[in-house]
Amino acid sequence: MRDHSGAPGLPTLESVAALAGVSRATAGRVLSGSPRVSESAKKAVLDAAAELSYVTNRAARSLVTRRSDSIAFVVSESEERLFQDPFFPAVLRGAHRAVSDQSVQLVFVVLANQAEHEQFFRFAAGGHVDGAMFVSLHGDDPLPTRLREVGIPVVLSGRPFRPDDDIPNVDADNLTGAELATQALLDVGCTRLATITGPLDMPAAQDRLAGYEAGLRAAGRKVATSRTMQSDFTTEGGFDAMNHLLRQRFSPDGVFAANDQMAVGAMRAIREAGLSVPGDVRVVGFDDSPLATAAHPPLTSVRQPMEQLGREMALLLLALVNGDPVSTSVMLPTELVVRETT
Amino acid sequence: MRDHSGAPGLPTLESVAALAGVSRATAGRVLSGSPRVSESAKKAVLDAAAELSYVTNRAARSLVTRRSDSIAFVVSESEERLFQDPFFPAVLRGAHRAVSDQSVQLVFVVLANQAEHEQFFRFAAGGHVDGAMFVSLHGDDPLPTRLREVGIPVVLSGRPFRPDDDIPNVDADNLTGAELATQALLDVGCTRLATITGPLDMPAAQDRLAGYEAGLRAAGRKVATSRTMQSDFTTEGGFDAMNHLLRQRFSPDGVFAANDQMAVGAMRAIREAGLSVPGDVRVVGFDDSPLATAAHPPLTSVRQPMEQLGREMALLLLALVNGDPVSTSVMLPTELVVRETT
Repeated sequence: MRDHSGAPGLPTLESVAALAGVSRATAGRVLSGSPRVSESAKKAVLDAAAELSYVTNRAARSLVTRRSDSIAFVVSESEERLFQDPFFPAVLRGAHRAVSDQSVQLVFVVLANQAEHEQFFRFAAGGHVDGAMFVSLHGDDPLPTRLREVGIPVVLSGRPFRPDDDIPNVDADNLTGAELATQALLDVGCTRLATITGPLDMPAAQDRLAGYEAGLRAAGRKVATSRTMQSDFTTEGGFDAMNHLLRQRFSPDGVFAANDQMAVGAMRAIREAGLSVPGDVRVVGFDDSPLATAAHPPLTSVRQPMEQLGREMALLLLALVNGDPVSTSVMLPTELVVRETT
Repeated sequence: MRDHSGAPGLPTLESVAALAGVSRATAGRVLSGSPRVSESAKKAVLDAAAELSYVTNRAARSLVTRRSDSIAFVVSESEERLFQDPFFPAVLRGAHRAVSDQSVQLVFVVLANQAEHEQFFRFAAGGHVDGAMFVSLHGDDPLPTRLREVGIPVVLSGRPFRPDDDIPNVDADNLTGAELATQALLDVGCTRLATITGPLDMPAAQDRLAGYEAGLRAAGRKVATSRTMQSDFTTEGGFDAMNHLLRQRFSPDGVFAANDQMAVGAMRAIREAGLSVPGDVRVVGFDDSPLATAAHPPLTSVRQPMEQLGREMALLLLALVNGDPVSTSVMLPTELVVRETT
């Protein structure tokens, strides 16, 4: 393997140019795919590159363009959440596959605090990644905008925190999904609906709450704000929120949890209170992650195409890096997957 | 925050030198900590840097040394295994904390196939990371040696595959740990011991098997090779291996599984065969991961200090990157944590 490694002994652009009988600049233009070269020069350079086993495609182009040929997958969460929530591996898998096909290095970065945000800004601005995809941002984080200001393309999962921001993004239809979940609970006769939301500094959590409220209003119901519990997308958070709901005077007979982890935590709280799912309380989750099928009983959940989300984010980012024309916002559909908790 | 960002408007080394009234080279030497500068020049440069809010420490040094101020955490596994095995988040957490304190970017890379090994080599050799720590290598992977040949320091988790390789590494005492596990099974009266190993192209798996065999020999027992099952460190692998062992004529009454995931899988196979743990078959795992305490019944396991392993690897790598003198091999102790499966 070593002789193909790009290690010492790698043929240089100079040696390709010399063998082709053209200037280094011309060889560079050919290998970067520029149209501003004659056909004869192009042929000579490509023949020379082949003869010398010069590293082709992106690797060659990066020598000319100073690209790093890598993109970052950035998660603003603790490692704990990252490894507990099946959302992240699914999105990462989709991104990894899309990027791997293109000979681009995917580097994965966890930003657990403000100092790490700054550190990553320096790394990216230093030219070590060509673009960044942000998964799970909180609040109005300035990092994506700062990167764009220094010329580094960015793609978000989910819409930007400020609706007027034009940052390219790939979102799932959280609003419709949450509305479907709410309708499903109403359709099976629930009269006291509750919701356990994600952190409301995240657009996905906001939109799922808005969909829940829209679903209630569409059915002519009032939104009982006392039965809206903000939580944190973790199993423990769902457990605590459900315990709180169960202690209320009119405790719910139907709960929409804004992800599967919180739904599983809520189901445990319901069981430990001596109640049954779905007999006493019906539950719907969101994500349709492997947790939904593993739950007892299997969990009705809103499916968002997590792997596709990662794939679309990566492809959009690669297009931006290449300067290709793109639509700056992609919306993926969601659907309800009915199992045994409704 | 933006004015401290290192974004556009970043004061340059030139502007610091100009304000200090010294050459760019002198300013660079001061900011990189070189002793070869006069005290008066040093004071002038540091004052100028402070006045201009010049980015100090590593960030400044990287402008001079062309360092990326990042190190890679490299895992040669599928995403599935990465996210299923609690070993990885624990080691990553330790490395992340150690690196974060030093204002170094930790980038996390998954190499699932040979093409991705090549891709990462190009990325690293391109100067985008200053060093790489390898977690979970298989076989005699040439990548660490190739990186060292192009001047990129490398640290391995676990000893090198070839014992004569001098690649710096941090290992846990797998041999002693496995011997302790085996002794524990013998001490409680097991007479038909079995082991479920990890992939034997990994030094950690080899050493845990060697420790098991040493434990048997130390007690004057023979090693029944028919009761040594090679598996793959996954829950499913442990389940399958145990089913195979249970179908043998002299099925085991004590099993040492080389990680907790396989131990949990083995316990499920034992239960599904209508047998009990520890009544019919005693089980010991390895790692003492959160899985061990979550198991029913709680699993006796060999503790290796996973977070410390990540931390020591990161510190060793940072020392190598800085050119500090280091011991090239660190061995961390293991111990047996007795719970209810023995």
